[in-house]
Amino acid sequence: MEGDLVELVGLNHKHFIILLKPGGEQHTHRGVIRHDDLIGTAWGSQVQSHSGSPFFMLQPAFNDLLRSIPRRTQIMYPKEIGYILVALGIGPGQHVLEAGTGSGALTTALAYAVGDTGKVVSYEARPEMQEVARKNLERFGLANRVDFKIRNIEEGFDETGVDALFLDVANSYDYMHQVRGALKPGGFFGSILPTTNQVTKLLYALRQEDFAFTEVLEIMLRFWKPEPDRLRPTDRMIAHTGFLIFARPVIIDHTEETTSSLVEEGWEAENDI
Amino acid sequence: MEGDLVELVGLNHKHFIILLKPGGEQHTHRGVIRHDDLIGTAWGSQVQSHSGSPFFMLQPAFNDLLRSIPRRTQIMYPKEIGYILVALGIGPGQHVLEAGTGSGALTTALAYAVGDTGKVVSYEARPEMQEVARKNLERFGLANRVDFKIRNIEEGFDETGVDALFLDVANSYDYMHQVRGALKPGGFFGSILPTTNQVTKLLYALRQEDFAFTEVLEIMLRFWKPEPDRLRPTDRMIAHTGFLIFARPVIIDHTEETTSSLVEEGWEAENDI
Amino acid sequence: MEGDLVELVGLNHKHFIILLKPGGEQHTHRGVIRHDDLIGTAWGSQVQSHSGSPFFMLQPAFNDLLRSIPRRTQIMYPKEIGYILVALGIGPGQHVLEAGTGSGALTTALAYAVGDTGKVVSYEARPEMQEVARKNLERFGLANRVDFKIRNIEEGFDETGVDALFLDVANSYDYMHQVRGALKPGGFFGSILPTTNQVTKLLYALRQEDFAFTEVLEIMLRFWKPEPDRLRPTDRMIAHTGFLIFARPVIIDHTEETTSSLVEEGWEAENDI
Amino acid sequence: MEGDLVELVGLNHKHFIILLKPGGEQHTHRGVIRHDDLIGTAWGSQVQSHSGSPFFMLQPAFNDLLRSIPRRTQIMYPKEIGYILVALGIGPGQHVLEAGTGSGALTTALAYAVGDTGKVVSYEARPEMQEVARKNLERFGLANRVDFKIRNIEEGFDETGVDALFLDVANSYDYMHQVRGALKPGGFFGSILPTTNQVTKLLYALRQEDFAFTEVLEIMLRFWKPEPDRLRPTDRMIAHTGFLIFARPVIIDHTEETTSSLVEEGWEAENDI
Repeated sequence: MEGDLVELVGLNHKHFIILLKPGGEQHTHRGVIRHDDLIGTAWGSQVQSHSGSPFFMLQPAFNDLLRSIPRRTQIMYPKEIGYILVALGIGPGQHVLEAGTGSGALTTALAYAVGDTGKVVSYEARPEMQEVARKNLERFGLANRVDFKIRNIEEGFDETGVDALFLDVANSYDYMHQVRGALKPGGFFGSILPTTNQVTKLLYALRQEDFAFTEVLEIMLRFWKPEPDRLRPTDRMIAHTGFLIFARPVIIDHTEETTSSLVEEGWEAENDI
Repeated sequence: MEGDLVELVGLNHKHFIILLKPGGEQHTHRGVIRHDDLIGTAWGSQVQSHSGSPFFMLQPAFNDLLRSIPRRTQIMYPKEIGYILVALGIGPGQHVLEAGTGSGALTTALAYAVGDTGKVVSYEARPEMQEVARKNLERFGLANRVDFKIRNIEEGFDETGVDALFLDVANSYDYMHQVRGALKPGGFFGSILPTTNQVTKLLYALRQEDFAFTEVLEIMLRFWKPEPDRLRPTDRMIAHTGFLIFARPVIIDHTEETTSSLVEEGWEAENDI
Repeated sequence: MEGDLVELVGLNHKHFIILLKPGGEQHTHRGVIRHDDLIGTAWGSQVQSHSGSPFFMLQPAFNDLLRSIPRRTQIMYPKEIGYILVALGIGPGQHVLEAGTGSGALTTALAYAVGDTGKVVSYEARPEMQEVARKNLERFGLANRVDFKIRNIEEGFDETGVDALFLDVANSYDYMHQVRGALKPGGFFGSILPTTNQVTKLLYALRQEDFAFTEVLEIMLRFWKPEPDRLRPTDRMIAHTGFLIFARPVIIDHTEETTSSLVEEGWEAENDI
Repeated sequence: MEGDLVELVGLNHKHFIILLKPGGEQHTHRGVIRHDDLIGTAWGSQVQSHSGSPFFMLQPAFNDLLRSIPRRTQIMYPKEIGYILVALGIGPGQHVLEAGTGSGALTTALAYAVGDTGKVVSYEARPEMQEVARKNLERFGLANRVDFKIRNIEEGFDETGVDALFLDVANSYDYMHQVRGALKPGGFFGSILPTTNQVTKLLYALRQEDFAFTEVLEIMLRFWKPEPDRLRPTDRMIAHTGFLIFARPVIIDHTEETTSSLVEEGWEAENDI
């Protein structure tokens, strides 16, 4: 299993994700763990540090991979990432665009989901930021599925007719014309924005560029303490990550007044129940 | 595009998912739409029913495919399905087990995510229920990725060493021994249960069978009305689908008292923030 | 108990709030109930309609009184009303202002809380609306604690130096100067607004008029099904009533630049945890 | 204003609640504030510590009084306290029971709400705990409205026919017979419990003692950052305080089988929407 990514989980769920190499060592506050003791050990086994502290050796959870990415930018959690994958219909073989790359959390999820036959193109204006993301993707063995591009997307995307495009940039509303040019008609657009002021601006821009079926939503995840005889939610939780916005570009004949007005009023998704 | 799945979306987001066949007709409360008018039309275009009502012709959203599945059993929403995919690390090429098949919503998502190189095995005790699910999967072109099995899982699973297993059955806590036998050590187990009484029982069963890193959580999704100058949440929302429970089987030496007790107390995920 | 308000609750919590009068009759879809059968009956007793359907005779719950008020305007629920009472510090003997009266739900709660020694002044621009509210208050025996005034509050309030003032009008942000004039320094201001666009406007207006300790919040209440062995939340819930905004006018020396800028940046309540 | 309770609020909403006495001093990390400088100063004014740091002098917010109570026991927040007041119909002149006294947060709210003509009786098994609460109430000038009693409520309450009774004890389900004896028929019972296991036990006990109209609920409050041009929720929030349970004792003729079974099935509040 040399070269495998391994997750070591100690007491209190303290965990490390490491790449196994002969002779390697992982230093923890509960003692040193030698890679050679791990190579050849069965997944799920309990191992011990040199000081006798117990750890489990596990195949890394995708969740924990995502959580292990150093966060320099806006935070996106598995609750958002999972929903984005479903809402954009990301699956094996697809071609997907995203900007910006950020620390690469969503890039990782997209690259994982499109598989060997798919492709992710990830734009980022800041070279040093994308370099961090690239290293994360390489560590996870997913970098070969990603085209990293350094570009301010104000200049537009190289691609056209793509299936799905996600924007994680603070002023995504400024690039709807460029997004429109890259997506195929009926393709899937998504964005995450932290403030309602930004959401308002994006909703105006989406109408301007003939996007329809717009959805705005937020996802709240509450963990519970897993104690069977004292079952209760945790005391605190994340109150807000960002608002998720989804929409699809459609082809509208603006010479017909009725149709045109429909876009403004009639093509919002109706999610009130 | 004959043989394609097409989504027609009319005013108020009323939508239909249809399989295009020459000569076919879709009857709606806003008039009839002829399949021949759709074949050859570009994705994202606006079409009209014979009575002049506007519809957009779109590639079906994965979300809408899931929503289009007739629900005879417990409801699972995209918010849960997306999170399950991430939490179980479902991706191209994986082998996944689930029980029961139910109406096939999760089966669809799993089959979509594992791709052509993956495999989903779906157990169900009620033949007529699985038949409904199979038809849904066939309609989506995903049935070839699924082994449907009619079986009460009390008798156990045929497979061993699988990566991930999800139980959507009311008494999932009765089958933890069988689940343990099917999953590889460190594999990913998940379940959804509507009541706290069931969660309590499952948490006891998980400890009994040496599962660790247990997480219990619930996901609340709130849609907002996508009106830029009157931005506000919808009036009503889904308050509860079910509690999601995740855990991983580990290998524990029960002759060591310390380790054994650790499982009961020390290996819960710590999600309080 | 002639003249008492009585709550009759039938199966499925169907309830009626009635004023007992000799000879009176309450017609329900489960039969007629004669007031004379109720007069003299103990609180909490079970009574029957002429067709044998069971009802309990109860002292009206304050909650149910509030819920019984016909809603013609924006809805405020007990979850908001209870919080408003605490946040504004409403108690026996206080003088409180509100605008608009609306259907009188908050007026009822305020009048109840200030007691015989307190006073509520309620402004409303639409006479017919206030008339409805006045009748509700009379029915509950609380009208004598309220001064109803017909006035567009753009013209200002008659009162000065009041303890607390609540605005339930769509453009509350237009009246902050008038509110400032009515409240005593350090008094309590509150408002409810449904959209984030309105909240943004109010926050600007509050800074303009030297209000500090501003809080913006929303309250979500989730009911659970009270079944001990199948304990779970209800399926649906109210997703949004409105955003509550609270602030207090302070006295600021604007000749001192430091202090002045502090109001803009430093006097927000810190509620992140 | 000697003898007044005063709230001093500094930058970042750091606040102190103090009792003004001639010659007194309040030491803060931003310098010393002399009480003599405050006596005679108008509410809402800005004052300075000896080192020049700005503070506002305010009438204490009821909210802040509650928050200022040292917490040694289970936490109840204004969101719960406000709802309890409305749900139990607490107002001027009422007689209310509670157990246990705890640190006195709810006692304070009840005493404030019932006014000079009302009465709160507060039971507590631990003398030292009640002493802390009594001191808090004395500080707020509310102690004269409260009868403090040291008693394990297993022995029952002295009072009968009371309007409302609230239990904030971990095993409230053990005392439903005693509660039944103290409340008038149709009176209001409430309790707060942190775990679902406790809620299940209480629901069984309530049925056993002929309580009806049972409601179980939880209240989630989310603060927003009050910045008009970057409006968004705070990053974190309280995820759980406790489940609130409300019910009312009714008089049931158990010789009638139909009626008796109704209590088990038909008299739950229906809050699904």
